[in-house]
Amino acid sequence: MIDVYSSATPNGYKVTVMLEELGADYTLHPINLSAGEQKTPEFLAMNPNGRIPVIVDRSNNDFTVFESGAIMIYLAEKFGQLYPEEPETRSRTLQWLMFQMGGVGPMMGQANVFHRYFPEKIQPAIDRYQNECRRLFEVLDSRLATSAYLAGDVYTIADIANWCWVRTYNWSGVSVDGLSHLQRWLDELYQRPACQRGIKQPERNRTPDDIVKGAQNIVVR
Amino acid sequence: MIDVYSSATPNGYKVTVMLEELGADYTLHPINLSAGEQKTPEFLAMNPNGRIPVIVDRSNNDFTVFESGAIMIYLAEKFGQLYPEEPETRSRTLQWLMFQMGGVGPMMGQANVFHRYFPEKIQPAIDRYQNECRRLFEVLDSRLATSAYLAGDVYTIADIANWCWVRTYNWSGVSVDGLSHLQRWLDELYQRPACQRGIKQPERNRTPDDIVKGAQNIVVR
Repeated sequence: MIDVYSSATPNGYKVTVMLEELGADYTLHPINLSAGEQKTPEFLAMNPNGRIPVIVDRSNNDFTVFESGAIMIYLAEKFGQLYPEEPETRSRTLQWLMFQMGGVGPMMGQANVFHRYFPEKIQPAIDRYQNECRRLFEVLDSRLATSAYLAGDVYTIADIANWCWVRTYNWSGVSVDGLSHLQRWLDELYQRPACQRGIKQPERNRTPDDIVKGAQNIVVR
Repeated sequence: MIDVYSSATPNGYKVTVMLEELGADYTLHPINLSAGEQKTPEFLAMNPNGRIPVIVDRSNNDFTVFESGAIMIYLAEKFGQLYPEEPETRSRTLQWLMFQMGGVGPMMGQANVFHRYFPEKIQPAIDRYQNECRRLFEVLDSRLATSAYLAGDVYTIADIANWCWVRTYNWSGVSVDGLSHLQRWLDELYQRPACQRGIKQPERNRTPDDIVKGAQNIVVR
């Protein structure tokens, strides 16, 4: 049994899609970010960074893992799936996972902040991040022009990690127009039942009030 | 023999410090970022994202690895060092490596952009990123208050990755005042000969002209 502390965000969904793909037995504990539940002493004892997602593996002495990328690798190794053993494919999986962790995630995150939440409208910052996201999408598109999935012929954690972010392009105000290979891959993952289920754990229920609270929390988070 | 395509940046130094720690046989090929050498067709064939560092392992059919975090893991597994086998320590190494890849690196990078390079002075953006960097430093400090190194009792790739960024706190305009555990760890790594050598491969030789060119490249990169 795995306890999952998560919210309706791309980083949270990376873990729940993964668990659904694995058919793992897990319990979701939704964390209300607007209420600051990720900053309570109990939560910080699990992740000193005060961020979702976190998992606690009850079948492994309550071993606790934070950082979505590290959780995906922990689960992939525990279940022996979605992270190929063949060394070169395994490295390519990691390369594209890191591309998401250090590129797609942070840049879409910043685009969202300046496009959606920031108290002031700062057009040069909005442009900077939206342009960078589009550039990263074009890199993915060029990869997917010659490869079925990011690491090669097989679906891996690299696809899950990138898909959970890229699918929200509209929220970031970034277009995928003309990126036919990226669109093909986005659509294919949307057809996977585990992806469909994972992005509802928990359901997204964003209200205007949440957005205002998000804006208030954004600098101090 | 490993070919390394890199520059005098924190992400570049993560790989050269690592290679120095391993005593690996490598050849450095300095990439001039201001001249756009990371965007040539030859470079993009190695990394479609057009970013340093990249390695080519001549002893493994010219296998090419991009993304600094993935390179560190590739080298750690190739040499069997700096990435402990014991599963929990191994996962903690990954958790703190991901903390650097998704947090410290991108946030210090954005602080540098708005503090140093951006054509306009946008104080709310400078504040946002400098505050976030300080918060991340405090998370590291709290971890290092109870642990010799980030993953536990042993020095790992997680320390190298975070150190190569955090040591440049002054360049980002962020203080480490009062963070005595973080300072202890920064100092300890500075005393390692491999760290001293790695952060000179290549030597940093930043001129005012480089900074201006950096500013020109920053939005379109």
